[in-house]
Amino acid sequence: MPRQLIECVPNFSEGRRGDIMEAIVKPFRETRGCALLDYRADKDHNRLVVSLVGAPGPIQEALLEASTVAISHIDMERHQGGHPRVGAVDVIPFVPLRDMTMEECVELARSFGKRYHEDTGIPVYFYEEAALRPERKGLEVIRRGQYEALKLEITHPERHPDVGKPKLHPSAGATVIGARKFLVAFNVNLGTDDVKVAREIAKAVRSSSGGLCHVKGIGLALESRGLVQVSMNIVDHEKNPLYRVMELIRMEARKWGVPVLETEVYGLIPAAAILDSASYYMQIAGFDPNQVIELRLLRMLEGDEA
Amino acid sequence: MPRQLIECVPNFSEGRRGDIMEAIVKPFRETRGCALLDYRADKDHNRLVVSLVGAPGPIQEALLEASTVAISHIDMERHQGGHPRVGAVDVIPFVPLRDMTMEECVELARSFGKRYHEDTGIPVYFYEEAALRPERKGLEVIRRGQYEALKLEITHPERHPDVGKPKLHPSAGATVIGARKFLVAFNVNLGTDDVKVAREIAKAVRSSSGGLCHVKGIGLALESRGLVQVSMNIVDHEKNPLYRVMELIRMEARKWGVPVLETEVYGLIPAAAILDSASYYMQIAGFDPNQVIELRLLRMLEGDEA
Repeated sequence: MPRQLIECVPNFSEGRRGDIMEAIVKPFRETRGCALLDYRADKDHNRLVVSLVGAPGPIQEALLEASTVAISHIDMERHQGGHPRVGAVDVIPFVPLRDMTMEECVELARSFGKRYHEDTGIPVYFYEEAALRPERKGLEVIRRGQYEALKLEITHPERHPDVGKPKLHPSAGATVIGARKFLVAFNVNLGTDDVKVAREIAKAVRSSSGGLCHVKGIGLALESRGLVQVSMNIVDHEKNPLYRVMELIRMEARKWGVPVLETEVYGLIPAAAILDSASYYMQIAGFDPNQVIELRLLRMLEGDEA
Repeated sequence: MPRQLIECVPNFSEGRRGDIMEAIVKPFRETRGCALLDYRADKDHNRLVVSLVGAPGPIQEALLEASTVAISHIDMERHQGGHPRVGAVDVIPFVPLRDMTMEECVELARSFGKRYHEDTGIPVYFYEEAALRPERKGLEVIRRGQYEALKLEITHPERHPDVGKPKLHPSAGATVIGARKFLVAFNVNLGTDDVKVAREIAKAVRSSSGGLCHVKGIGLALESRGLVQVSMNIVDHEKNPLYRVMELIRMEARKWGVPVLETEVYGLIPAAAILDSASYYMQIAGFDPNQVIELRLLRMLEGDEA
């Protein structure tokens, strides 16, 4: 295994057609040095979220190949789904994992963005740590009004892309590329079809409306299931542990008399996030990750100890 | 790292004198191929619990060395402590971890037991999967009445040791050696000094008195802290998950109006046991251990995938 490791979580605007999702995922599965750790789609989101771990080189090659497939099959003019999006290849975040600084990840995102634009002709926006304009740190600013609004407003200077001309790709829209810290994607499904409840709970829990400082969240409908969902990113799970998010949502849900049906962890999660929450619920004092046998084996295999 | 791995959790009857505990632990720390994963002592138990992982060969060498140290410093005639015990080196269980069958671990326990007796002169009992008499599968049968009773009763045929003459070592007593499945040691501390409460709760939760089938447990006093403890071994954490044990104890504690102050995981725990309980408390649907990044890295490093 190479020493330098990144995580990459590309999001594609296709969550319904299984054959196309498999074709998108194929390069990730087959490229040596790029490990496909997880991929899952949501019909209501109409979105495919892929989790990759590997060396920066192979991951970039696989991304270009997968994007070509996605672009050839996804038409943003026809795309509908509950999750905000601006393009067929909607977001590509790079996350430093091992022997890689955030600065190196920012470099990687920006150089990949240029190459991606040259290959595909799709305009690129840089976000989070890779943002070239301070307001674009926030993904929600770049995606404001989604594909439909961006198509009209891209000619406005404040919405110009960072790479490419101020014009969307006719079918694939735009792509947002960035570097960021590891985040935990955590969704809570609620037993009601009233999307207002999910939106109000999202407001109570997310930082932008005064909730927990490191939580982003939206409320959306899972129409095919007749449910609603609070869909969140926990940007710093050490400062805003999962259990606190969970209990805050349970508390707010009681206000509406709505049950929490189930939750989902989307993609990858660091062991520490799970251990923290298990320790909270079971009141485990002084629990050391090194007591978890697999974590100790990993350290041994990585050669940190005899 | 060798392919064949075992866990070994020797328990020594010394939990108060720091210098002696360090001397006991030194061979585990220094023997190549034997990794000292955890060691912790409890003053009230007056007991040291060590967790080792490694290849069978080096672990046996380190055990013999550490036992020599323990035997030279611990006098069972003077030993007092809240935890049942019959010897200075009280229990040595071998646990198959990787590329090792239970049968091989039983062989290992029995051959180690013979060698240990030859080296130390201490009589040996085999327990759990390594038991030579069916009733000795249960450690509690071998330890009935503890050191003090065994000293008198060892001459009775039904209490004869499996290796050695029917006579305790004058200062180090006897040693119980065995092979068993991985168990989770889980203690719950309760906010009362009434040991009866801990004993009643232990009865409610353990299999021998009609509780959960794969839980062993006793109630004991933590005198120095003015608390009591339900001290448990969860013998099969898949069938009796931690959260169920935890909630059963919380439920019983309410009956006595006694708070659960904190819990402890003693020694090692498999990742799956933590993930199961975290999933329960946070209602995580379809949570896959492979979503935990460190567990995926471990699999990658072990060469199970590219």
